[in-house]
Amino acid sequence: MNDKPSAPATASATNSAWGGRFSEAVDAFVARFTASVSFDQRLYRQDIRGSLAHAAMLAEVGVLSAAECEQITAGLQLIEQQIARGEFNWSETLEDVHMNIEARLTDAIGSVGKKLHTGRSRNDQVATDIRLWLRDEIDQIATLLTRLQSGIIALAESHAETIMPGFTHLQTAQPVTFGHHLLAWNEMLERDHGRLLDCRKRLNYSPLGAAALAGTTYPIDRHATAAALGFTAPTENSLDSVSDRDFAIEFCAFASLLLTHLSRMSEELILWASAQFQFIDLPDRFCTGSSIMPQKKNPDVPELVRGKTGRINGHLVSLLTLMKSQPLAYNKDNQEDKEPLFDSVDTVRDCLRAFADMVPNIQPRQQQMYQAAQRGFSTATDLADYLVRRGLPFRDSHEVVGRAVAYGVEQQRDLSEFTLAELQQFSAAIEDDVFAVLTLEGSVAARDHIGGTAPQQVRSAAARALAKLHSRD
Amino acid sequence: MNDKPSAPATASATNSAWGGRFSEAVDAFVARFTASVSFDQRLYRQDIRGSLAHAAMLAEVGVLSAAECEQITAGLQLIEQQIARGEFNWSETLEDVHMNIEARLTDAIGSVGKKLHTGRSRNDQVATDIRLWLRDEIDQIATLLTRLQSGIIALAESHAETIMPGFTHLQTAQPVTFGHHLLAWNEMLERDHGRLLDCRKRLNYSPLGAAALAGTTYPIDRHATAAALGFTAPTENSLDSVSDRDFAIEFCAFASLLLTHLSRMSEELILWASAQFQFIDLPDRFCTGSSIMPQKKNPDVPELVRGKTGRINGHLVSLLTLMKSQPLAYNKDNQEDKEPLFDSVDTVRDCLRAFADMVPNIQPRQQQMYQAAQRGFSTATDLADYLVRRGLPFRDSHEVVGRAVAYGVEQQRDLSEFTLAELQQFSAAIEDDVFAVLTLEGSVAARDHIGGTAPQQVRSAAARALAKLHSRD
Amino acid sequence: MNDKPSAPATASATNSAWGGRFSEAVDAFVARFTASVSFDQRLYRQDIRGSLAHAAMLAEVGVLSAAECEQITAGLQLIEQQIARGEFNWSETLEDVHMNIEARLTDAIGSVGKKLHTGRSRNDQVATDIRLWLRDEIDQIATLLTRLQSGIIALAESHAETIMPGFTHLQTAQPVTFGHHLLAWNEMLERDHGRLLDCRKRLNYSPLGAAALAGTTYPIDRHATAAALGFTAPTENSLDSVSDRDFAIEFCAFASLLLTHLSRMSEELILWASAQFQFIDLPDRFCTGSSIMPQKKNPDVPELVRGKTGRINGHLVSLLTLMKSQPLAYNKDNQEDKEPLFDSVDTVRDCLRAFADMVPNIQPRQQQMYQAAQRGFSTATDLADYLVRRGLPFRDSHEVVGRAVAYGVEQQRDLSEFTLAELQQFSAAIEDDVFAVLTLEGSVAARDHIGGTAPQQVRSAAARALAKLHSRD
Amino acid sequence: MNDKPSAPATASATNSAWGGRFSEAVDAFVARFTASVSFDQRLYRQDIRGSLAHAAMLAEVGVLSAAECEQITAGLQLIEQQIARGEFNWSETLEDVHMNIEARLTDAIGSVGKKLHTGRSRNDQVATDIRLWLRDEIDQIATLLTRLQSGIIALAESHAETIMPGFTHLQTAQPVTFGHHLLAWNEMLERDHGRLLDCRKRLNYSPLGAAALAGTTYPIDRHATAAALGFTAPTENSLDSVSDRDFAIEFCAFASLLLTHLSRMSEELILWASAQFQFIDLPDRFCTGSSIMPQKKNPDVPELVRGKTGRINGHLVSLLTLMKSQPLAYNKDNQEDKEPLFDSVDTVRDCLRAFADMVPNIQPRQQQMYQAAQRGFSTATDLADYLVRRGLPFRDSHEVVGRAVAYGVEQQRDLSEFTLAELQQFSAAIEDDVFAVLTLEGSVAARDHIGGTAPQQVRSAAARALAKLHSRD
Repeated sequence: MNDKPSAPATASATNSAWGGRFSEAVDAFVARFTASVSFDQRLYRQDIRGSLAHAAMLAEVGVLSAAECEQITAGLQLIEQQIARGEFNWSETLEDVHMNIEARLTDAIGSVGKKLHTGRSRNDQVATDIRLWLRDEIDQIATLLTRLQSGIIALAESHAETIMPGFTHLQTAQPVTFGHHLLAWNEMLERDHGRLLDCRKRLNYSPLGAAALAGTTYPIDRHATAAALGFTAPTENSLDSVSDRDFAIEFCAFASLLLTHLSRMSEELILWASAQFQFIDLPDRFCTGSSIMPQKKNPDVPELVRGKTGRINGHLVSLLTLMKSQPLAYNKDNQEDKEPLFDSVDTVRDCLRAFADMVPNIQPRQQQMYQAAQRGFSTATDLADYLVRRGLPFRDSHEVVGRAVAYGVEQQRDLSEFTLAELQQFSAAIEDDVFAVLTLEGSVAARDHIGGTAPQQVRSAAARALAKLHSRD
Repeated sequence: MNDKPSAPATASATNSAWGGRFSEAVDAFVARFTASVSFDQRLYRQDIRGSLAHAAMLAEVGVLSAAECEQITAGLQLIEQQIARGEFNWSETLEDVHMNIEARLTDAIGSVGKKLHTGRSRNDQVATDIRLWLRDEIDQIATLLTRLQSGIIALAESHAETIMPGFTHLQTAQPVTFGHHLLAWNEMLERDHGRLLDCRKRLNYSPLGAAALAGTTYPIDRHATAAALGFTAPTENSLDSVSDRDFAIEFCAFASLLLTHLSRMSEELILWASAQFQFIDLPDRFCTGSSIMPQKKNPDVPELVRGKTGRINGHLVSLLTLMKSQPLAYNKDNQEDKEPLFDSVDTVRDCLRAFADMVPNIQPRQQQMYQAAQRGFSTATDLADYLVRRGLPFRDSHEVVGRAVAYGVEQQRDLSEFTLAELQQFSAAIEDDVFAVLTLEGSVAARDHIGGTAPQQVRSAAARALAKLHSRD
Repeated sequence: MNDKPSAPATASATNSAWGGRFSEAVDAFVARFTASVSFDQRLYRQDIRGSLAHAAMLAEVGVLSAAECEQITAGLQLIEQQIARGEFNWSETLEDVHMNIEARLTDAIGSVGKKLHTGRSRNDQVATDIRLWLRDEIDQIATLLTRLQSGIIALAESHAETIMPGFTHLQTAQPVTFGHHLLAWNEMLERDHGRLLDCRKRLNYSPLGAAALAGTTYPIDRHATAAALGFTAPTENSLDSVSDRDFAIEFCAFASLLLTHLSRMSEELILWASAQFQFIDLPDRFCTGSSIMPQKKNPDVPELVRGKTGRINGHLVSLLTLMKSQPLAYNKDNQEDKEPLFDSVDTVRDCLRAFADMVPNIQPRQQQMYQAAQRGFSTATDLADYLVRRGLPFRDSHEVVGRAVAYGVEQQRDLSEFTLAELQQFSAAIEDDVFAVLTLEGSVAARDHIGGTAPQQVRSAAARALAKLHSRD
Repeated sequence: MNDKPSAPATASATNSAWGGRFSEAVDAFVARFTASVSFDQRLYRQDIRGSLAHAAMLAEVGVLSAAECEQITAGLQLIEQQIARGEFNWSETLEDVHMNIEARLTDAIGSVGKKLHTGRSRNDQVATDIRLWLRDEIDQIATLLTRLQSGIIALAESHAETIMPGFTHLQTAQPVTFGHHLLAWNEMLERDHGRLLDCRKRLNYSPLGAAALAGTTYPIDRHATAAALGFTAPTENSLDSVSDRDFAIEFCAFASLLLTHLSRMSEELILWASAQFQFIDLPDRFCTGSSIMPQKKNPDVPELVRGKTGRINGHLVSLLTLMKSQPLAYNKDNQEDKEPLFDSVDTVRDCLRAFADMVPNIQPRQQQMYQAAQRGFSTATDLADYLVRRGLPFRDSHEVVGRAVAYGVEQQRDLSEFTLAELQQFSAAIEDDVFAVLTLEGSVAARDHIGGTAPQQVRSAAARALAKLHSRD
């Protein structure tokens, strides 16, 4: 009872489920081209879960007898075990996961199996299955995200005082702490977590009972199946229920932003692990070598994650293109929703796992970071501020420091490496106490407000971030 | 005080704001290529609003005197009026909206104007401006969405009993009511509204005070400016604050889904207005004609809205591509965030307005819809159900009806146009009462559960939908 | 000898191919996460073809002895047969297709197998493999495209006089012939064919010998391997050779345009097969039914093809995102190039095959088309032209016809169904001969210039189109 | 005479060009929403050029008299001058560039102006205009590309011997020359140039005469207008001619690949200009500073170009989404083709100009590059090759060198800094002559085949590349 093309319990050359008005069998190539069982079989657990709830409801409202419901339930449970054990023979002739399971059920328990499909259609069935499946996956992804954030926060906490150069335009800007930098990563992921939960909240409505497109004439209880399956409520409109794929697109939009964030972290890890930066070491087990160049230790994991951003953005575009201009209600086009969604989920999970394993094992090379922060004139702003405190207007002081930097570039020495006499060439206002201002520690500690890089702010921020994680159920 | 390239209050060939270490002026083409004032000037209200809050806070913490704060405040208010009246002369040499306003302020009130920028940078300033601007726009868009939904629900309510064919695969499937179909549209928009509010909720944090990337040494009160500007709280991390563009991407993802929905409605309106369907008339004022073909009345508005889906999907891809792999913190690339976001907002607003104006004026041609529902064997499922009630197994009954349909296709007549004798050729179980089953009214009324197409369900659904609108603040 | 992470001939916990500088084995999850053999094994034929050419060249220049070359050749040929017969055991520990084959070769023929990799790297090897593979696929796709075009042209030729309504804005515009409409499809595909050949032309250069990134110290002859593999010439730059993926992107851009075209044809087929248009019948074997609605005959094939446009656009975005901002030369990100490319090729091939099979079997319902062309005032332009010939200025004549149409809309009758007296209400210039002008045949025949819809033009155009197909090699 | 909604020569509340069948004026908002003159006015030169050719042809075939043609020609030339001088008053009520010019023409020369539109429609007119416009732009872009390539090749030629580290995975791999690296850039652009010319070749067909969709009844000579406008030939099919936007998509696909290449170059320039690499200096005039941090010199131009990749990819997606599933022939959606195309052209031109100006002025810091190449064990492969020559199997030699590298990492010294005794710890086969092998010069010179990094190969490659540029007409 559905609107997607179906096939009989036992496959045959002429399709006995809908063959009445047809004069020839489906072309063999067409059959393969239009079948989905090769990829939608992964929905089997959800398909069976949905069928169990549907059968129980049908018994409750009197469409099935208690005995029939028991038979169906037992049959489905058996099939689930067979599939889990790899003993189920999927048939392309039976098109999709739904018809494969229904056909097997009827084989197993006889014609009572055919009653299971009463009051539903494959159109609402598949919509239910995907939502259940995606909800399960979201819960796993949320856990992985929490694990990754937890690792980042712990690392940040332990490096609240580790100084590194902060960059803008990839030019040395001002010193920051490594812990502060890591907490910027956490903020990105914190927003991702919020988007993920919002997506879950919005998808968690039950389309079951929308049937082909208009609802069904049977006295079904949609509230009962919704509750049994953990949905917040039934969906409000049957046409929308079978044609809506918002949840898949919203998930992919979440995934695109998440991967964008991971690509930014990856880019930084790759830079930091380069011979030119040498800010970190990645554990060998997250790297690979080269069979030709014996010295190579390549940061494969962040590179691959960075590359996978493309894949995810592509899936988002796929789904948006897919749904554009489709008239209601269900169209065959919608079968194309699954592969991009499945691959997005797998990619997100793998990337999060790889990062959650790797991040706590990043080994910062504190001395290299510190030395790099000493170069690049990172405390030039502090010198300018010093001169302002000595009474120079900021624009003049900026100009003075600019000239001092030009001299330093020429001499290849940092401001802190100048002699007092050299500094005084640029402004007579400079005195011996200037060197305290030019320390990295002083620069960092002075940015002491919420969101600033001062070590005590970083520790507070880490504590707040951790508290948020703990408040997740 | 900022990290984006700045210019002096009065422009000159050598940039006196950061020219200290530079040996040659910026190339004229490069100056034009890198300037943003041609598009970011539209942020001027938010820029001034942010500056007013910043100045008040600086006075509160003692960085500015009360008198200085008053001077700055008066100056900025004057400038805002000048811009609003079109009396402001934007200068490309001054690069962006921020420097244009600051330069004018200093011209107007003298060197105290230069103190405004204490404790902030253009990096946090622009992030604040865009968030304020987008928040304002979101509020307007939410209002337009509510207006459109309100029009849809009212139309649906008044057509709870108007029968049309429901389609799957653009083939006649089962009869539905026009009101039911319209409420499917409302469900899409209801989810869009939820996404819009979630986006607003997540963007509503104040980056002000993050300064260039690391915070500032001044004793700023970020909670005060956040509160003054209506933000929920300050952001948690300065590096993240200046590099984050999630809010723009999340808005564009919302917009892509919204336009996808509008493209689906547009497709239906275009089909329905065609000579082949003739389900609706669109008011002349939403159509245009042809100067060559006198008979043409083209549904320009839905066509154009459908086309604008491309534009919006493109902007989403722009921003995702933009942010991919960017190391922290601010990079010049980020300047490219504005045009896609601005155009997305404008497009969303225009499309919503066009639809909110047009939808309540759709004129359904009820007779055409009814006749179309009578064709295409839309009650074939009902005949099959009738036979099931007469004792046939569903698969057999489906087969019987399939053959009857094949006969009808050949004869070019619908099932309801068959004689009883003709029907009985296919099954002896068919009796005189079958014709009641084959009515459209009976078919529709029988789908009587939440989400179903029965008129009373449509009325309840419309009432619930309206109640949701009313519960929006 | 390569730069992609490699593994030893026999897998082990510590990677003996590049383990010298490593202190711990690759994490098991990381090994799975970074392996590519599950998808790149499909390059095995090309990998072996490349290796055979490489070995022959090494023998030619004296790096291998003739005997060694023979051993290697025989070994590779054996492996190819094993793989083709499904008797090859792919190992994920061996990472990719290259190392799997090399390891098997060494198992089979001993340590001489290890000499095969002299003077190359996996970086240039994989670039060679993909180009060879894609070239093979392009040739098959070109054949399918020709077959589809051939079917379209033949159908067009046989319907050079079959009249249907031409649409703009999906509103009836002017009558055209069905053959003319079909030839519009052919023009799209003709451009696609040109783009496909241009892509082939540009990819057909041999990267073999670029080695890891800089070339090799061995006295290789890149011209020889290029010639042996059918390439136009060797590539010009080793760094570019290992980092270039333009060919994959250019192919995907071709594919996006092709699928866009197929989506437009699909949309038309779906419309035409609807109950509202009834312009065509699709053969049953390209359609499926519904297990719940016995009357349904769904145009699955065009719907699915339309949906697959999303997939292809997504792959294009994937690859563009992937390559954005990558510094030279090879990065691990590039491993992500294969799956989108493979799936694009498969999708293009399947969609072309489905269309090439289906199009010649489209059954136009000529009477329905003709009647539709009679409605919708399709000859209104011809009436306006008639009045111009009678001396009215075009703008006046357009106005006159506009009023006549408004009257017709109200009366629900076409211009040709008016009486002479009715027509004369709108202009006294109208006489009895007007009815000849209002015929569909006259309207169509009058558009008699190259590219016009007159039957004789359609026949000439079909002949020219066919001649172009025949001139393909 | 066209199918796009038109407006009268003088605007009025009721549209007199197609108002006959309409009962109410177009809504004011709708008029603004659907107008295109704000952006399509930039086609004015091409619109007039097309009109001049059309008028001349109409005179040739006798539809216009010679005198009428002269009047029209003089009028159009006058209008072109007015527009060029900024003296033309564009009216939104007149919708688009075509109607604005036609209305002005009729104002200027009287009702003979109305005859210009005979035998064409705005549907073919706009298709002609865009093709002419894009062809002009392509020619300018080709020139800029050649200029950029020319600058790259000259710089490469002068640095055929400048040694830098070659990277894979952003890890030091093997030494290459800076000239060799630059020529990799040139190869990317060489392919882009080919794609650009292929796009030009395919677009250069004249749609003029396709009229609204079916051709026209006037005795037009499409070959004559095609020749007059420099087109290769007329297009083959009128329906295709008005609905085809392949050329815009193909151009955007070219642009996406070009910008992808520029983004890669930009990424490298940004890295090389960082404090960590210090491989190059960019001239001050392509950089900007910071008004807060006096030491900053930001590589704005490459950053902005890298960011603009997003914009271009977005436009490609826009156009692909736009055309997906559109039934033939012209739909209003197509109006959305212009803005993405215009902006793509502008962006490509600006980015090419910025790069063509900047690249010849890149200042490599040869000493820094050389020292970097000495670090990172870049000659490890050469040591392995040395050992192979001494009789070790490659796998053993690789292992030996791997251990030596591990020791070097620990000691923070490169292989060339080891003593002989230290080296001999790893293999007794190492002798005094090893140090010649470990030189960067020897390593580079040894890769001496086409495409390799040996200085003499780089010089040859530069010469060939230059010859190709010169062979462009």
